[in-house]
Amino acid sequence: MSAMDEFILRPDPANPRLTERLGGRDHEGREIETAVVVERPLTLFLNKREIVTMMTIGDYPDYLAVGYLVNQNMLRQDDEIVGIDYEEDIETVVVRTKRQTDFEAKLRKKTLTSGCAQGTIFGDLMERFDEIELPKDAVMRTSWLYALTRKINTSPSLYLEAGAIHGCVLCEEDRPLLYMEDVGRHNAVDKIAGYMRLHGISPKGKSFYTTGRLTSEMVIKTVQMGIPILASRSGFTAWGVALARKAGLTLIGRAKGKRFVVLSGAERVLYDADPKGVPDEAKTLQRKASLEEDAA
Amino acid sequence: MSAMDEFILRPDPANPRLTERLGGRDHEGREIETAVVVERPLTLFLNKREIVTMMTIGDYPDYLAVGYLVNQNMLRQDDEIVGIDYEEDIETVVVRTKRQTDFEAKLRKKTLTSGCAQGTIFGDLMERFDEIELPKDAVMRTSWLYALTRKINTSPSLYLEAGAIHGCVLCEEDRPLLYMEDVGRHNAVDKIAGYMRLHGISPKGKSFYTTGRLTSEMVIKTVQMGIPILASRSGFTAWGVALARKAGLTLIGRAKGKRFVVLSGAERVLYDADPKGVPDEAKTLQRKASLEEDAA
Repeated sequence: MSAMDEFILRPDPANPRLTERLGGRDHEGREIETAVVVERPLTLFLNKREIVTMMTIGDYPDYLAVGYLVNQNMLRQDDEIVGIDYEEDIETVVVRTKRQTDFEAKLRKKTLTSGCAQGTIFGDLMERFDEIELPKDAVMRTSWLYALTRKINTSPSLYLEAGAIHGCVLCEEDRPLLYMEDVGRHNAVDKIAGYMRLHGISPKGKSFYTTGRLTSEMVIKTVQMGIPILASRSGFTAWGVALARKAGLTLIGRAKGKRFVVLSGAERVLYDADPKGVPDEAKTLQRKASLEEDAA
Repeated sequence: MSAMDEFILRPDPANPRLTERLGGRDHEGREIETAVVVERPLTLFLNKREIVTMMTIGDYPDYLAVGYLVNQNMLRQDDEIVGIDYEEDIETVVVRTKRQTDFEAKLRKKTLTSGCAQGTIFGDLMERFDEIELPKDAVMRTSWLYALTRKINTSPSLYLEAGAIHGCVLCEEDRPLLYMEDVGRHNAVDKIAGYMRLHGISPKGKSFYTTGRLTSEMVIKTVQMGIPILASRSGFTAWGVALARKAGLTLIGRAKGKRFVVLSGAERVLYDADPKGVPDEAKTLQRKASLEEDAA
């Protein structure tokens, strides 16, 4: 496949379904109106089986559904998807496969022993973790990293418009390719995984950027997707770092302006840019980010 | 009950169990060492029933366990807790009640119809939402709000030490009472709910502060706890605001320095302070917060 263009998909802050304008008061008691992001339930079915209800902004239910199933190991590479039906009025999306998936049989067995599937699902998430080999020859040039964060931070987004939202970006060298946002903790990454599965995008040569923290779950999902480099403007958890080191994932955190810290896989980082030439983040972006922050 | 003291509980950044020092490289390629917060699994049992596995820093497994069960409506006010057993080596906490709880019988029925309990649990979370009446006479003076955010932001914390963590604080007038932190999204609030249940702390006269976003779940939990005022330095989601308006919860967001926005229950906010006299957040705090941010 030839090189992909920048921003094949990017946030659409002008989409009226994704934000609402609400009235309120500010710190001086003045009446104001401000934009806030929406948050809707979406219930996912795999064939006849109800899997989960997610809270999402609802812009790409198809990618979100498929990406969730892929990242949870509920869909295998050879499961053939024959339909994805999104019913907006009942907030439901159904992914249909040609044959019953392994997962459905497995789940039936597991529900007998586990009251709540949350633990079970975490088990499934980890199932393939040890088998995956990430490419050793991948690199992240610091000049690419600086270009990526600048392009991502200055691209129009729901974050800049209304805040309180996560962003994830699939990247190639210095180019952001797919930029997804969502209120839900891991929906943004799942939407990218779904796009990659449905459009046959290989993880080869790719890196992944997130606004969120580098936790165990974020590391596991990136490794599952076969992507060898994960970068974030946020910080680390110790278990996230431990899993990244185990899997050989390059983990770059606290990336803002010229600063960053690598706590795993530092051998993939090539220092080809002079950090002195990199400006701090623009005050206007910082202020907005800090006002809204935290995609928490 | 008489007025409670400030910071009955607060973060303990010096506790060696809560952070690890890890080696890595910085943006100039120098070898560095930095602190990151831990993240451990904790599996919760209610009597003989496995409920959920949570990711937590693990400082208060007893409060976390009880608070989770209370906030999910799995423990009723009249369920008598006869034991809480934390087994550190197997990362398990068991809450024992005098009689079988309603929840266990209910769950047995529900697992027959739902493959994954996540949706079910969300249903339980909402069960009492419509019945709850929040006190109308509660107020938040802006002088209290400014004092609270200043005290909370300058108090020693894992956030200032290592970042990548959420904070929640139970407050009374201008006094932070219980300040809990956790990597897990709602663990910090659940730990406070558990403390309140086990020590018989009434929600009367209290307000709640969180570093995280004002989402539907955060609003639901605050209402469940009977607390009429919720404030955050982060932003809002539309559904969070809608639920707050339905329940009559005062919702204050984007509270940094002198700025804040109220999108629900503005009648409880008394403007007794001149915002011009309130300094912006100290640069050092801002930088740390923005370096680490995002408790995302």
